[in-house]
Amino acid sequence: MKDCVFCRILGGEIPATTLYEDDATVAFRDVNPAAPAHALVIPRKHIATLDDATAADAELLGKMMWAARAVAAEMGVAKSGYRLVMNTHAGAGQSVFHIHLHVLGGRGFTWPPG
Amino acid sequence: MKDCVFCRILGGEIPATTLYEDDATVAFRDVNPAAPAHALVIPRKHIATLDDATAADAELLGKMMWAARAVAAEMGVAKSGYRLVMNTHAGAGQSVFHIHLHVLGGRGFTWPPG
Repeated sequence: MKDCVFCRILGGEIPATTLYEDDATVAFRDVNPAAPAHALVIPRKHIATLDDATAADAELLGKMMWAARAVAAEMGVAKSGYRLVMNTHAGAGQSVFHIHLHVLGGRGFTWPPG
Repeated sequence: MKDCVFCRILGGEIPATTLYEDDATVAFRDVNPAAPAHALVIPRKHIATLDDATAADAELLGKMMWAARAVAAEMGVAKSGYRLVMNTHAGAGQSVFHIHLHVLGGRGFTWPPG
């Protein structure tokens, strides 16, 4: 998707600090970090929102969660704790319409989560 | 796990308002809602934290994401937007050690997410 910033990162058109990648997902640092450790896990497949995923994408969604775990370890926050966040639709704060899982760590977290 | 409150909900020992269930997951209302619509999606399998999941659990993690999507629709917040949150370890706010995905909607959300 040429108009999708995350697809452009996947295509190497926009630079990003990659922390993890596998056959299905890529994780890189968020350029506007909301925590000392803040990465985004995205699927290589363009899916605009979680509501655009199909039942066949369930395995891919699981791989995103699995990647998030690896990314937390890579960032050194696995033991201290980390928060995963996915916003679906603009009303919840989604700003890039290629699904992404935020992985945040390296500080304390409050509740409610925003 | 007899000491796990979520396993006790799964076993019917503790009541909960179930919103969705399938072969792998159950979702019910959070008893301390942080939004007008607030549910928890849990796997039927006891997994303490995301770091205790194995590669074989990736499909199950995907089913949790898929269930979250269904729960958002069930709560009527799919269109207005919803935020998914998973806390891993006490340092990130995890208070029940049976993995769970928060599904929050029905209000606006701020950033950072707690």
